[in-house]
Amino acid sequence: MRFFTHLFATLSISATRSKTLLPVSAGLRLLSSAVFAISIQLPMATSEESLRLALTEKQAAVDAQADAVRNLKVRSGASQAEIEAAVEALNNLKVEAGAAARRLQAALSGNGGSAAGSREAFRQAVVNTLERRLFYIPSFKIYRGVAGLYDYGPPGCAVKSNVLAFWRQHFVLEENMLEVDCPCVTPEIVLKASGHVDKFTDLMVKDEKTGMCYRADHLLKDFCKEKLEKDLTLSSEKAAEFKHVIAVLDDLSAEQLGAKLKEYQITAPDTKNPLSDPYPFNLMFQTSIGPSGLSPGFMRPETAQGIFVNFKDLYYYNGNKLPFAAAQIGQAFRNEISPRQGLLRVREFTLAEIEHFVDPDDKSHPKFGDVAELEFLMFPRGEQLAGKSASPMILGKAVSKGIVNNETLGYFIGRVYLFLTHLGIDKDRLRFRQHLPNEMAHYAADCWDAEIECSYGWIECVGIADRSAYDLRAHSEKSGVPLVAHEKFSEAREVEKLVIVPSKKELGLEFKGNQKMVVEALEAMNEKEAMDMKTTLESKGEVDFHVCTLGKTVSIKKNMVSISLEKKKEHQRVFTPSVIEPSFGIGRIIYCLFEHSFYTRPSKAEDEQLNVFSFPPLVAPIKCTVLPLVKTQKFDDVAKVIAKSLTAAGISHIMDTTGTSIGKRYARTDEIGVPFAITVDSTTSITIRERDSKQQIRVSIDEAALVMKEIIDGQSTWGDMVWRYPTHSATHVEDE
Amino acid sequence: MRFFTHLFATLSISATRSKTLLPVSAGLRLLSSAVFAISIQLPMATSEESLRLALTEKQAAVDAQADAVRNLKVRSGASQAEIEAAVEALNNLKVEAGAAARRLQAALSGNGGSAAGSREAFRQAVVNTLERRLFYIPSFKIYRGVAGLYDYGPPGCAVKSNVLAFWRQHFVLEENMLEVDCPCVTPEIVLKASGHVDKFTDLMVKDEKTGMCYRADHLLKDFCKEKLEKDLTLSSEKAAEFKHVIAVLDDLSAEQLGAKLKEYQITAPDTKNPLSDPYPFNLMFQTSIGPSGLSPGFMRPETAQGIFVNFKDLYYYNGNKLPFAAAQIGQAFRNEISPRQGLLRVREFTLAEIEHFVDPDDKSHPKFGDVAELEFLMFPRGEQLAGKSASPMILGKAVSKGIVNNETLGYFIGRVYLFLTHLGIDKDRLRFRQHLPNEMAHYAADCWDAEIECSYGWIECVGIADRSAYDLRAHSEKSGVPLVAHEKFSEAREVEKLVIVPSKKELGLEFKGNQKMVVEALEAMNEKEAMDMKTTLESKGEVDFHVCTLGKTVSIKKNMVSISLEKKKEHQRVFTPSVIEPSFGIGRIIYCLFEHSFYTRPSKAEDEQLNVFSFPPLVAPIKCTVLPLVKTQKFDDVAKVIAKSLTAAGISHIMDTTGTSIGKRYARTDEIGVPFAITVDSTTSITIRERDSKQQIRVSIDEAALVMKEIIDGQSTWGDMVWRYPTHSATHVEDE
Repeated sequence: MRFFTHLFATLSISATRSKTLLPVSAGLRLLSSAVFAISIQLPMATSEESLRLALTEKQAAVDAQADAVRNLKVRSGASQAEIEAAVEALNNLKVEAGAAARRLQAALSGNGGSAAGSREAFRQAVVNTLERRLFYIPSFKIYRGVAGLYDYGPPGCAVKSNVLAFWRQHFVLEENMLEVDCPCVTPEIVLKASGHVDKFTDLMVKDEKTGMCYRADHLLKDFCKEKLEKDLTLSSEKAAEFKHVIAVLDDLSAEQLGAKLKEYQITAPDTKNPLSDPYPFNLMFQTSIGPSGLSPGFMRPETAQGIFVNFKDLYYYNGNKLPFAAAQIGQAFRNEISPRQGLLRVREFTLAEIEHFVDPDDKSHPKFGDVAELEFLMFPRGEQLAGKSASPMILGKAVSKGIVNNETLGYFIGRVYLFLTHLGIDKDRLRFRQHLPNEMAHYAADCWDAEIECSYGWIECVGIADRSAYDLRAHSEKSGVPLVAHEKFSEAREVEKLVIVPSKKELGLEFKGNQKMVVEALEAMNEKEAMDMKTTLESKGEVDFHVCTLGKTVSIKKNMVSISLEKKKEHQRVFTPSVIEPSFGIGRIIYCLFEHSFYTRPSKAEDEQLNVFSFPPLVAPIKCTVLPLVKTQKFDDVAKVIAKSLTAAGISHIMDTTGTSIGKRYARTDEIGVPFAITVDSTTSITIRERDSKQQIRVSIDEAALVMKEIIDGQSTWGDMVWRYPTHSATHVEDE
Repeated sequence: MRFFTHLFATLSISATRSKTLLPVSAGLRLLSSAVFAISIQLPMATSEESLRLALTEKQAAVDAQADAVRNLKVRSGASQAEIEAAVEALNNLKVEAGAAARRLQAALSGNGGSAAGSREAFRQAVVNTLERRLFYIPSFKIYRGVAGLYDYGPPGCAVKSNVLAFWRQHFVLEENMLEVDCPCVTPEIVLKASGHVDKFTDLMVKDEKTGMCYRADHLLKDFCKEKLEKDLTLSSEKAAEFKHVIAVLDDLSAEQLGAKLKEYQITAPDTKNPLSDPYPFNLMFQTSIGPSGLSPGFMRPETAQGIFVNFKDLYYYNGNKLPFAAAQIGQAFRNEISPRQGLLRVREFTLAEIEHFVDPDDKSHPKFGDVAELEFLMFPRGEQLAGKSASPMILGKAVSKGIVNNETLGYFIGRVYLFLTHLGIDKDRLRFRQHLPNEMAHYAADCWDAEIECSYGWIECVGIADRSAYDLRAHSEKSGVPLVAHEKFSEAREVEKLVIVPSKKELGLEFKGNQKMVVEALEAMNEKEAMDMKTTLESKGEVDFHVCTLGKTVSIKKNMVSISLEKKKEHQRVFTPSVIEPSFGIGRIIYCLFEHSFYTRPSKAEDEQLNVFSFPPLVAPIKCTVLPLVKTQKFDDVAKVIAKSLTAAGISHIMDTTGTSIGKRYARTDEIGVPFAITVDSTTSITIRERDSKQQIRVSIDEAALVMKEIIDGQSTWGDMVWRYPTHSATHVEDE
């Protein structure tokens, strides 16, 4: 029962239905806009089901008793007392049924209802602040905007650029990765090879009258959720059916989805018009390269392909040595059918991707020791299937126990954990969830998502996948350029090689015009087939052999082919490297960071709630605000001197010289997450106020920029400074 | 004559022909891929023309003498001596004509020939190094690439990211600009308002048989250039005609271009097939937003529009105060018809744009004093028209003399100069060229391009334009949202306001159905027209009045309209801000930087030339290389310790532990422009070698990272370090 519960507790809403070709894309690589896993905290199925059952039974008892009362009334000879007793029993049963209905309602809304309501209210508070302070805004707003496109305004843009700078420092510089920068415009052949042209689709239905488009799976899911949450009369069988539909949503074919929509008589949400059958819509923005109209191109749906097609040059650049990693930060595009969920599902977004190329026979990592002791929430496959929750695990143990497939994958999981928590993601709302077998590609060795919990549920923000040799092989095949690595042996090794030599003369005499196809079929045999043939030829002198290209079976005689295993010396091994791919949806990480950093606190007068973003200095859009306590020329001059020294030290800052009260000005800068405020209240020294503690220290004017720089560069903490300089618990009252 | 020379000495190859609507875009804003000014160093027209004339005269003399000889021969009675003398004269004339032809040829190839040849050879050396060391590579190379699309490989990507980081520091942080980040996908209405949908075109012709496309102006220009350079028999009239065609190329309409192509019988270059008439091809990559196919969109051709449409929010964010600047770094796209010139003309490129909004009545700049003393090459309109060259000017004087229109424009010119020279652009190959009147839009107040000289000529890399109120007005009109600023007066001001009150009753009686159009025409009069009408009405009682919408002149009588100037109190002024726009083509700046930084020097053995990129530490892709002198465990361990301390200090580095000779390893790192090499030759201290001087200092292991950090952060110079630490002119011989 717990197992069943889990399946719909963690739904993977996949953007492509191509489980066989692109499942990791679906679950991971292409995560960044449409695809992510949301855990919907449905009530435990056991209690919900028993409540539904209880309600059904009570309702049945009410109906039966009502019949009994009716029968008594029409029957001659029933005493008034008898009737009154039956009516009273009926009333009691009705009260019980009402109570059962309320219990069920409470259970359903306990999570979906009031909790969801408060999540929604919290989100609204965050989003209002973000939009009002221009962290982000709907793009092209004066033209009524375009769904799924957002602009980062000044503070949002600064946060983004800080996150990306830290990403470069933490991954590219730390690991000496080879960063590349490839165009967004991509010719069709590249995305044909990667599978995107054929498989990067969502199923769509159209309102048959207005032509309005919807995602078929969304409509079906919305219908089932609505029924489950609102319809108390649902039988427990029907409830189980709806839950099952939601659980298997991603695996439904176009036909199955269409059949379900028909069965449930689902119509267009806006007009109630009938819907078309579902059909695949490719999510790439298509365009045409050059003026001829003959070279179709697409805006890339991910940045990874730019790295794969350059593998040969990058391998050479790295001195023909493995392992090495390439990285890319850039825009990616997905033409969503109907984007929802704000910054989490957009049509254009920034990805930061790493492709770490490694020998498939050796996935150890020299620096794994650096992260092995880390302990954080992990959610392995086994725990998910057993219906348990994520629990803290030591990374080293997870790898040594084989829960995480290999050290390199483990190393990146650890590095991603450090990256996200340094940014300010709450470690208690961050978990690493392993993909279930049905979420992974057949070729993938292992796959973990960094999921961050926010008001929308658990959101996949980083995918870390061992994609084996899939991508390099696909491009090798399509381009004819072998994307392989070489391992030179220190001394030559002896290997057995299969040698098949068809006798063209004998085969020509026998098969005439078909000779070529028989020769090719013989040469194409694998070792087992060839050795079996050899055995049969030696014992029987001839053998039946099916030639696909001829569409028939022919008889091969002993003199027509020579088969042997020969020992050969080899000086190197040629192989397709495996790729381990951490892929970061930057916009999603930033949105979750916004939610995790947001809190409110009462104003001094306690007459209103003030908004605060508790960004660490690393990501804060602006590092400090300079405020003259009162508007005088003297203080303004000091403020200018300080501003100049901050600029020279490379510290981003703003100046607030409005005449507003100091408390209001603090509140204004808290609301965009500025960690420090420098208040000019004398011509020799200033106070520095820390945003979250509201603590203040007094520092001389000359030292102000130095103190700021030390903290912002991470050389000292605020705590160190409080130790070093005189503090004032509230030199300047927050609400003057 | 000099004036005429100049006109084709500095050709502006414009990507759009919409001089009236988008000229600044054409010359500037949209510079980044197709549009830039190239100075082709044509020979001085005077000398070339006299040489052509001399050749024509000599040729005519040869022809005349040949006729004379022929006549002598057929005439009876001409003596043999007479004939021989005439033949000798003919031969002498032929020799003279040959000499004249050689002189002309020499004059033509003196610039177009050998100099161009050496420029070409230099470029080839740079580009070979850049491609071999993966600074950049043609995108999708394994699929044979796509013209006009390039990838930045690891060192190129690092240079780009350093240039952008410095841009942010130098402009955004220094000026407290509001940075935004808008999507590339842009709905049609935005680009309709900006004029791009209608006017962002190049004229194209098609091979009528193969369908191959060409830029019409390129074909015409190539034809004229070829004739001018190769055809010695060209009359000086014809030569002048071809030069004139090249000079006015940008101003030719589709019809005029087509007529010229026909007149010169120009055919498709590859097949010699006939060509279609020229027709406009829009250079934007078109796509479709969402699944309906009903929302056309484009990949933005510039980033500026994203800022303009957000003006209202940004103005509010800035406390409703002017001036302020917004900035954006991002990808832009141009679907070039047939890209040439490598990194200078590409289909996707990074732009960094600033829109500085300012009160049109006050374009002073408080920080202008910081740049007023700068002196550098300026090329004002007057000097260009007088046929002079760029010459050094002091910026402050250029502004005070009115050569540069205003302080704000001047301030940005100065800041751009500092930006480019800090990156490593050679100040002697950098000039600021003012747009000629025919290059500028009617609304533009002034416009200067930062042009950098490279092997392709003078390349426009940054455009700095005062675009007045054009863009904000265009979006105000299209969107209906007023994009304006307010100046609140400290006390109300009395202003005179024109009040026109048509008498609808009288006008209705007179004009009946046409009344509305007459009313509108009356109300649309400006102050002068209205006051003139008032005067005439008062003196004569009636006046003739042309109503455009009726297409006729009507008679207006005194009782039909009341016109007056009324005094009103105003509390604020509402106006559309002017915008001053510095727009940086990042890829072009980087390419020019590559050329300016490249040099070769002989190896120690003088048997080969070694390539060096002399990047300053600020832009160097990697700041230092760590090299164990010989391959031993001891030195490798020290190298690892140093690498770790460099990583901790945030200094990008590579380790070269290959067994190659130290000289070869130095050469390898010089070739990607790494400024410093740390050579491990003991377990207590190391040597640091500077790339260009090859000087070495000895530093203890503990100090190595600190020394590097001080230099790279710009706190100390290499010179300071040479002073502080013991030097070794060549501790490690370059070619061991």
